[in-house]
Amino acid sequence: MKVSTKTIISFGISIFFSLTNYAQTAAHNYVDPMIGSEGDGRVFIGPSCPYGMVKPSPDCTVSPNSGWLPLPKEVTGFSQVHVSGTGGGPKYGNIQIMPFSGTLDKLDQTSRRVEESVKLGYYQTVFKENQIRTEITTAEKVSFYRITYPKNATKELKIDPGFFLGEQPEPDGREAQQFVGSQIEIVSDTEVRGYSRIRGGWNNGRAYTVYFWATFDQPIAKYVTWKDGIFYSNQPAQFDSGRKTAALISFGKDGKQELNVKIGISFLSELKAKNNIEVEIPHWDFSAVLSSLENKWEQLLKRIQLSPDTSLEYKKMFYTGLYHTMIMPVDRTGENPLWTNTEPYYDDFYCIWDTFRSSSPLITLIDPKRQTEIVNAMLNIYKREGYLPEGRSGNDNGRTQGGSNAETVLADAFVKNLKGIDYELALKAMLKDATIPPGGNEEREGRGGLLDYLRLGYVPFGIDRAGNRTMDYAYNDYNIATVAKGLNHTEIYNQYIKQADNWQNLWRSDYMNNGATGFIMPKDASGNWLDDVIFGESKIQKPTYKYTPVITESPWYVCHWCVFFYEGTSWEYSLSVPHDLPEVIRRSGGDLAFKNRLDTFFETKLYDVSNEPSFLAPTMYHWIGKPYLSSDRIRTIIKDNFNTSHEGLPGNDDSGAMSSWLAFHIMGLYPNAGQPYYLLNSPLIKEITLELEEGKSFKITAKKMSDKNKYIKNAFLNGKPYNKAWILHEDIVKGGELILEMDSKPSVWGTTILPPKK
Amino acid sequence: MKVSTKTIISFGISIFFSLTNYAQTAAHNYVDPMIGSEGDGRVFIGPSCPYGMVKPSPDCTVSPNSGWLPLPKEVTGFSQVHVSGTGGGPKYGNIQIMPFSGTLDKLDQTSRRVEESVKLGYYQTVFKENQIRTEITTAEKVSFYRITYPKNATKELKIDPGFFLGEQPEPDGREAQQFVGSQIEIVSDTEVRGYSRIRGGWNNGRAYTVYFWATFDQPIAKYVTWKDGIFYSNQPAQFDSGRKTAALISFGKDGKQELNVKIGISFLSELKAKNNIEVEIPHWDFSAVLSSLENKWEQLLKRIQLSPDTSLEYKKMFYTGLYHTMIMPVDRTGENPLWTNTEPYYDDFYCIWDTFRSSSPLITLIDPKRQTEIVNAMLNIYKREGYLPEGRSGNDNGRTQGGSNAETVLADAFVKNLKGIDYELALKAMLKDATIPPGGNEEREGRGGLLDYLRLGYVPFGIDRAGNRTMDYAYNDYNIATVAKGLNHTEIYNQYIKQADNWQNLWRSDYMNNGATGFIMPKDASGNWLDDVIFGESKIQKPTYKYTPVITESPWYVCHWCVFFYEGTSWEYSLSVPHDLPEVIRRSGGDLAFKNRLDTFFETKLYDVSNEPSFLAPTMYHWIGKPYLSSDRIRTIIKDNFNTSHEGLPGNDDSGAMSSWLAFHIMGLYPNAGQPYYLLNSPLIKEITLELEEGKSFKITAKKMSDKNKYIKNAFLNGKPYNKAWILHEDIVKGGELILEMDSKPSVWGTTILPPKK
Repeated sequence: MKVSTKTIISFGISIFFSLTNYAQTAAHNYVDPMIGSEGDGRVFIGPSCPYGMVKPSPDCTVSPNSGWLPLPKEVTGFSQVHVSGTGGGPKYGNIQIMPFSGTLDKLDQTSRRVEESVKLGYYQTVFKENQIRTEITTAEKVSFYRITYPKNATKELKIDPGFFLGEQPEPDGREAQQFVGSQIEIVSDTEVRGYSRIRGGWNNGRAYTVYFWATFDQPIAKYVTWKDGIFYSNQPAQFDSGRKTAALISFGKDGKQELNVKIGISFLSELKAKNNIEVEIPHWDFSAVLSSLENKWEQLLKRIQLSPDTSLEYKKMFYTGLYHTMIMPVDRTGENPLWTNTEPYYDDFYCIWDTFRSSSPLITLIDPKRQTEIVNAMLNIYKREGYLPEGRSGNDNGRTQGGSNAETVLADAFVKNLKGIDYELALKAMLKDATIPPGGNEEREGRGGLLDYLRLGYVPFGIDRAGNRTMDYAYNDYNIATVAKGLNHTEIYNQYIKQADNWQNLWRSDYMNNGATGFIMPKDASGNWLDDVIFGESKIQKPTYKYTPVITESPWYVCHWCVFFYEGTSWEYSLSVPHDLPEVIRRSGGDLAFKNRLDTFFETKLYDVSNEPSFLAPTMYHWIGKPYLSSDRIRTIIKDNFNTSHEGLPGNDDSGAMSSWLAFHIMGLYPNAGQPYYLLNSPLIKEITLELEEGKSFKITAKKMSDKNKYIKNAFLNGKPYNKAWILHEDIVKGGELILEMDSKPSVWGTTILPPKK
Repeated sequence: MKVSTKTIISFGISIFFSLTNYAQTAAHNYVDPMIGSEGDGRVFIGPSCPYGMVKPSPDCTVSPNSGWLPLPKEVTGFSQVHVSGTGGGPKYGNIQIMPFSGTLDKLDQTSRRVEESVKLGYYQTVFKENQIRTEITTAEKVSFYRITYPKNATKELKIDPGFFLGEQPEPDGREAQQFVGSQIEIVSDTEVRGYSRIRGGWNNGRAYTVYFWATFDQPIAKYVTWKDGIFYSNQPAQFDSGRKTAALISFGKDGKQELNVKIGISFLSELKAKNNIEVEIPHWDFSAVLSSLENKWEQLLKRIQLSPDTSLEYKKMFYTGLYHTMIMPVDRTGENPLWTNTEPYYDDFYCIWDTFRSSSPLITLIDPKRQTEIVNAMLNIYKREGYLPEGRSGNDNGRTQGGSNAETVLADAFVKNLKGIDYELALKAMLKDATIPPGGNEEREGRGGLLDYLRLGYVPFGIDRAGNRTMDYAYNDYNIATVAKGLNHTEIYNQYIKQADNWQNLWRSDYMNNGATGFIMPKDASGNWLDDVIFGESKIQKPTYKYTPVITESPWYVCHWCVFFYEGTSWEYSLSVPHDLPEVIRRSGGDLAFKNRLDTFFETKLYDVSNEPSFLAPTMYHWIGKPYLSSDRIRTIIKDNFNTSHEGLPGNDDSGAMSSWLAFHIMGLYPNAGQPYYLLNSPLIKEITLELEEGKSFKITAKKMSDKNKYIKNAFLNGKPYNKAWILHEDIVKGGELILEMDSKPSVWGTTILPPKK
């Protein structure tokens, strides 16, 4: 082999660049936790490990879901447990601490930030009133604070297990978190323990308890404990008498100005929280904790590599998308107070109605072993508590919005052949949803309105969320049919594949609106279409209002979860048939009529970019053989609504749902969850490499791609022409390369072989 | 006024006797906790305050429900929480301690008792192996142990929060308690803290946590902690890692041989348990704790006074009956980990199916304020958790046997005019049971099989316990009608008074058995009577067996809660119509036929003295105008089945159900729970005085009563002739005197005015 000098030099330079660039080019550096933090995104901005149980963050009033709000909002303190991207009533915000300088006689130590900086795994702020700098990083179950007090200032810290987010005066307010109890003990001159017990919140859940153990690297010089408005200077403990408790601690003026605080958290006990510290952070090295966290993220994020010349904007949007997808649900293995198990335990499925569409499929693609754990945790919950989770949080099922959407997650695992799951048990869990009404509280779990759905073939108007429940149940029935078929349960398959058509029972064929024909519309239990629906709950007078496919309107005094479609219109939900779009197209009047329908949908603002019911819609041109129109829509939607700013997400991130939608589309892939394929679109990146199991990889190369060359002209899978605008999951995970030749105008590529039919 | 010397002397002697006899004649001295401890009674034999949260007792294997078994069964230790009189899988048995002498290297310290003595509030035993004497008394939430080691013996103690009753290898075994977690910490040389977290048990409940704080009056000399089979000599704490934990403690050889131990218990936290000690027993005076307990009981028991010449046998049977009635349910006010409230919280309704008939009415009669608290606790559970309790234990509803029997308790409170209860809320709670199927788990709460019951008017065969569910639901519907009527909800009344006849839908008129005509018999959903019912659950072959009114038989492999009648026969349940016996009599062929039916029932052993479904039956002669036959039956039943021996109760005491049946009949009263009257029978005591609210009293005097003069010839209420063999609750609580003139033969007294009709 002949090697020229030039080659050797070039090779050497290449190595040099690889090494020097590594730190900068590590994927985790492109994560910006602030994307989506303002506006409606509501993402959690503090440090978190992947699926991390502890999520420390400032709380900038008692109400925001993620704790944080932008400057100039005051900070009341830093609490250790949060969720990301949620709407409705807040959950968590437990075990708040707050550094301050001053006397030990005031519980409220609210301060204003004069600066703040955030990167993956790291939060830092300085307070105006006292110039105290607070830095935070975290391990899985232990948060780590480095607090720097100004020179000559006294060093004080509040620890407040009585605090929580979303407090309301009404004791049983829907979605309000409600105080149950708290406790605090000064254990030694460097340790404090206690807990916070709270119920309610968005999912109206039963009481959960967050235990903590806090340790300091400086001795406590003085303290007061506090209960229910009164300070106690000589009582090291305040027991739980159903009242709020707290402590104010002084580390005095002596010693170094830097105070390090580790707060172990546990859902079992204070000693378990202490053990979590010993296991995870047996030292005082802030940087080591941060590095370890960065490394955990890097191991996950680098599984998808983008071509080096990708714009910083896209790198940030993409890796932040992956990041947001993997901070929820929360891994609480070993922290389950409800039953002992050797199986994984996850909480904060918040909620599956949001995440089943794209978050779960993205986790499956990046980290199938993790998704297997999550699915097994879901089945474990079914085994022990009777129903699969939906909006589970604080160790309690407790809220559904649409269908029994966990069924789609199970079907998705099944069609993507995730190993290590008992699919017979999964089918049993799905059938429980589909056959046994949850009763008592019809929105807690399972399928509310099930008996009417089974009797009539649809949920009649009058039952909350009749429209979207019908649509979701029909798809969930399809999910059951899918698994039953694969497991050779023919009778079950036959029944559920038939029920999968139930959406048709609410399809009002002759109904026209804005040029489109056929809509999902309210029908009463006697089978009458309702043009006017009852406005409110009065039992004497029954005022009505006109119901049309474009309205979400409901009387101000009717709860927003009682309407016909949850957070959506008939324009959106009439397309919500992920298993049988050919039939929707036929009923809409054929391909052209359906194209016009979609065009109207996107061009007259009937499409809602900010919420999950519209997630699949931009790809629907695929089903009429015009995938390039899907790609056009997606590019426009991303351009108009997503960016790297604090308002870079158009709606609630919902535990990563919105972010995972974006990440998929940046890759040119989009899953139809519960079905074994991805729709192919023009990617936004020239080269994407997915590192898969067993050392395999799958590379998507978009040749000659530019802003102008945004259409796929030809495709080659492992060197062979590939003419479908969709690709099976199995074709990706077996590894290989998909080459897309890009062009400046639409082509016939992908127009003939439509996505798999029901 | 002229006073003779003789009178003065006599007066003096009388005072003397009153004073000297007081201690002996105090009512609590007649309580013998051992009555019903052997055989099927299963009563709790250890010390307990009225409705006391803490119930310390020896555990004589891991399986008995109350912990205790007679000698020569070994003692594994003494645990702090038990229930009384229950059947099925055990619950509780938490925080076990065990004194021993020896090295700290063996967890099992099982010992044999050589002697044992028990009285109200006090337990004492001596072990054979080591001659250690253990004495126990208790406060509400704190148990107190006085342990006397023999001279020169070393003083050791095991503390075992890993222990619990009813452990089974099967992880999800029905009715098995299952380990979730435990923890232990040696806090100081006189204190240990920790907890036990357990799920399951009879009601298959969610996890509950029993926290403890133990203090000693001698310093710990040495200890080892233990986790999952391994001893640790230098670790003062074993955190909860889902494994069992314990500690062995030595107090050495020095100092006194008497070790005193206080164990505070809490369902909130260890510090709350410590606070419970500080509040309840801030000293080391064993006798003071015992005296305080005795006094609490005395204040309750003395509310019913018996004539001084009552036989010791009857005094013991009667006061022990009252005692057993008032050790359950358990007052956990201030110890509710599920929600904060200022209202009372009770647990261990175990279960209302057992206690609604006579326990609740007896508590209402003795202590109406307590019953008001209990009812409010039940309503509070409904408000927060959606359904009224039935078999609630360990802070979780979780088991029904028959109807939604809490409704009878609410109706009973209503008709007896208990103050301080929101009866509109009560009606709402009752209607929830009657209209909303519990779903998911149809035996957890509410009414299983409700939809079929509403559709068909009965629960069809094939649904578990179809027979007794139908009977109870019909009565519960009557309870709803009762409250609705009283609150002027006419529409509700009209509906439910009609549904109260639903028992008739399972009445098979032409069916004859042992000379009786008409029986409640299984009917399928299509309305066919079933002579043969399916034997088991095979789906291919469907073997059947002949169903008759005398059998309880079911295939060995069918769960005993899946049969047509729960723990009973059609002979029993066909009489189970507490609201419409006149119709049962009519359908049985009239008065004579009904008399013959009852005679056959009692004389051919079809009557089951050991279980609640037959509780009302002995009084049913009242409804055919022959109350003297009721009295005859009751006397015979008591004579044949109840006494003061350890086997003095014929069946499970079921939280005092059996005992309260006896106590009522000793007084000559028996309630028809949910209805405002008591049936009057010949009492077994010559004079009974009930101390009522507001200083009132009601006295029942049976003049000339003897074994021979056992029939009521005449009655006078407050001096006026009283010819009814029943009396309204309001006539008792307004105070007064009922004089019964007894005779040796039946009379026409009480034969004409029958108990109130539906």
